[in-house]
Amino acid sequence: MPATDDFTVTPYAVEGDIDYDRLLDEFGAESLTTEQKAQFPQPVHQLIRRDVFYAGRDVDAFLAAANEGKTHSIVTGRGPSGPIHIGHIIPFYFAKYLQDQTGCLVYIPLSDDEKYLLKDKSLDEIHGHTRENLLDILAVGFDPERTRIVVDTADADVVYPLAAAFAKEVTQSTVDATYGDPENIGLSFYPAVQAAHLLLPQLVEGRHPTLVPIAVDQDPHVRVCRDIAAKQRYDVSKPGALLSKFLPALEGPGKMSSSGDAASIRLSDDRETVFEKIRNHAYSGGRRSVESHREHGGDPEVDVPYQFLYYFFEKSDERVERLAREYRDGSLLSGELKEIAAASIADFLEAHQNRREELGPVADELKQYRLRESERQAARKQAGYPSTRVF
Amino acid sequence: MPATDDFTVTPYAVEGDIDYDRLLDEFGAESLTTEQKAQFPQPVHQLIRRDVFYAGRDVDAFLAAANEGKTHSIVTGRGPSGPIHIGHIIPFYFAKYLQDQTGCLVYIPLSDDEKYLLKDKSLDEIHGHTRENLLDILAVGFDPERTRIVVDTADADVVYPLAAAFAKEVTQSTVDATYGDPENIGLSFYPAVQAAHLLLPQLVEGRHPTLVPIAVDQDPHVRVCRDIAAKQRYDVSKPGALLSKFLPALEGPGKMSSSGDAASIRLSDDRETVFEKIRNHAYSGGRRSVESHREHGGDPEVDVPYQFLYYFFEKSDERVERLAREYRDGSLLSGELKEIAAASIADFLEAHQNRREELGPVADELKQYRLRESERQAARKQAGYPSTRVF
Repeated sequence: MPATDDFTVTPYAVEGDIDYDRLLDEFGAESLTTEQKAQFPQPVHQLIRRDVFYAGRDVDAFLAAANEGKTHSIVTGRGPSGPIHIGHIIPFYFAKYLQDQTGCLVYIPLSDDEKYLLKDKSLDEIHGHTRENLLDILAVGFDPERTRIVVDTADADVVYPLAAAFAKEVTQSTVDATYGDPENIGLSFYPAVQAAHLLLPQLVEGRHPTLVPIAVDQDPHVRVCRDIAAKQRYDVSKPGALLSKFLPALEGPGKMSSSGDAASIRLSDDRETVFEKIRNHAYSGGRRSVESHREHGGDPEVDVPYQFLYYFFEKSDERVERLAREYRDGSLLSGELKEIAAASIADFLEAHQNRREELGPVADELKQYRLRESERQAARKQAGYPSTRVF
Repeated sequence: MPATDDFTVTPYAVEGDIDYDRLLDEFGAESLTTEQKAQFPQPVHQLIRRDVFYAGRDVDAFLAAANEGKTHSIVTGRGPSGPIHIGHIIPFYFAKYLQDQTGCLVYIPLSDDEKYLLKDKSLDEIHGHTRENLLDILAVGFDPERTRIVVDTADADVVYPLAAAFAKEVTQSTVDATYGDPENIGLSFYPAVQAAHLLLPQLVEGRHPTLVPIAVDQDPHVRVCRDIAAKQRYDVSKPGALLSKFLPALEGPGKMSSSGDAASIRLSDDRETVFEKIRNHAYSGGRRSVESHREHGGDPEVDVPYQFLYYFFEKSDERVERLAREYRDGSLLSGELKEIAAASIADFLEAHQNRREELGPVADELKQYRLRESERQAARKQAGYPSTRVF
């Protein structure tokens, strides 16, 4: 994507064409090196190989622990403001890959509080989305022994005490400078809740490297939390971050919207819908006519169906490179590329939907992923609270 | 006390000589009328008769419910930043009087979160005070069937979801204007927690009049909560307030300090200590010499031992008026008045301490005062959360 001055990236707004390298300069994060990429478990995931996760903070400590069989954890959350689309689920499948390969702990916070505070939606609406989102997350198939799912208001007995403790370390002016002036005092406080999410694995399991795979716009949350950890009031290391680019929107470059846009692909879309959306809405890098395309070729760099395959949905490097080559030389038509991408996404969604359908009621399924009582007490104690829950 | 321009009253600072009438003008509250005072249960408590509780908001609705035998509640809390002194416990004994007379519900929140966020103390210190403060509150002897005690971080499963919901209604600029710029984002959020305290009785028991007996400096908390209630997103009426003057400090006019000042009288002080503190530290309205006092008389209006008796510790109006008369005409000496006040306070404290000593471990005693599971679910549901606790 072209570098321009015309883009905005905060946790609440992503606009314009994004210069990912300049973002790193501004945020103070570092590109992943070839050596770092090689230390991810083999075979290295395409998200790493292809620089979708392109930068990070303190990635080395996490990789060292993973390769030495020591405790290490991923925190990857979800703001339940609407149905999950394909861009949102990718970090969860990435976490699942890491868990399968290295046994890493996966902590999954759902910020129903933040989304209620941020959106013009009722608690009922937010919790409808929360239940649906949970089923999608459960369908990924995490190992219950190594995975914990936390819903902020349902697990407030542990989330709030931690957040209140961490809040003492964060000034309002830090929040204003990082996020812009919050709309309400719940959003003023929310960075402390997010710090509780990111430090929770260490509070439960003891000090260890945590990595937070997030789209680059969420980096400010990690930085606020790293500042809290750096004050050394708690026995935790600063959480690391693995920063990703945004999956392009169907209509073209920029972040995919979750706000009910009919043109984004949802996890619940059936095969026909996926094909319809890709055929009719996906931004193409092809030429206007078949003749022109055969003669001049298309541009995979801006072609959304190609980008979907490249980012995540085509595992084979050989195949994804061949598609780009054939698209450029005009032998692969735009419509053909769309069919290939749609089939790949539809296959992925069908497998996901089948796993989801096999799940029981969400409350029953969730039980095995909730924090154990001993883990809640451990976290509270590590945050400085009395070891008994009741005075 | 004289009216001057030289005073400051916010929830975090009380300084200078206080003009209680001007405070009402500024805060928009109203003095209690003779008719309102007469509607308190008979015999009307000396705190009401003598204008210590001198003003309020929406007191009529509370009194009507009390006199008609309908549901009504008091919320009176404690910030556990240190040992309780005699000024702090008075609202609890007042609530106990109301509960005995009218069967009113008493909700008692302990804001350990706020005190940790506000003070330069560790969580350990705050929770040491919390345990000690709880024992003193339990020693008042509330009816467990009609009393609920909530500790913010120990009851966060209900406090935080409510506070997060209410926080959406409060802007940061409202908080800044009401309290001054908060020191950290926990204090930015705290007015939402306090709103949860004040609306909790109605969320648990259904809409009914709630009265909050507080020193006038805490009125801003009530106003923020009343604004939330006024938005009618929830089925609650605006909590009323009963506003009190400050019990004078031992050394003279102003608010009694809880910050470990040796000269304030603590609930744990034994008889000898009380006498020593009153004799050696209490500000006297008497004359310099016995001869001068016999000739010109003393001034009970500024005499702290007299004020202690007048505010709370001498129930008999006849006796308290006689003491003032005899002090003014010189027949009652300053030292004699001190002995009378010290004896009355020491008697009160001995009775309190005896009840406290009969209590078992705090966790055991507290159990019967904690929110029942059904009450927690009712409050969360009334605040707009799913009726089941787990998704």
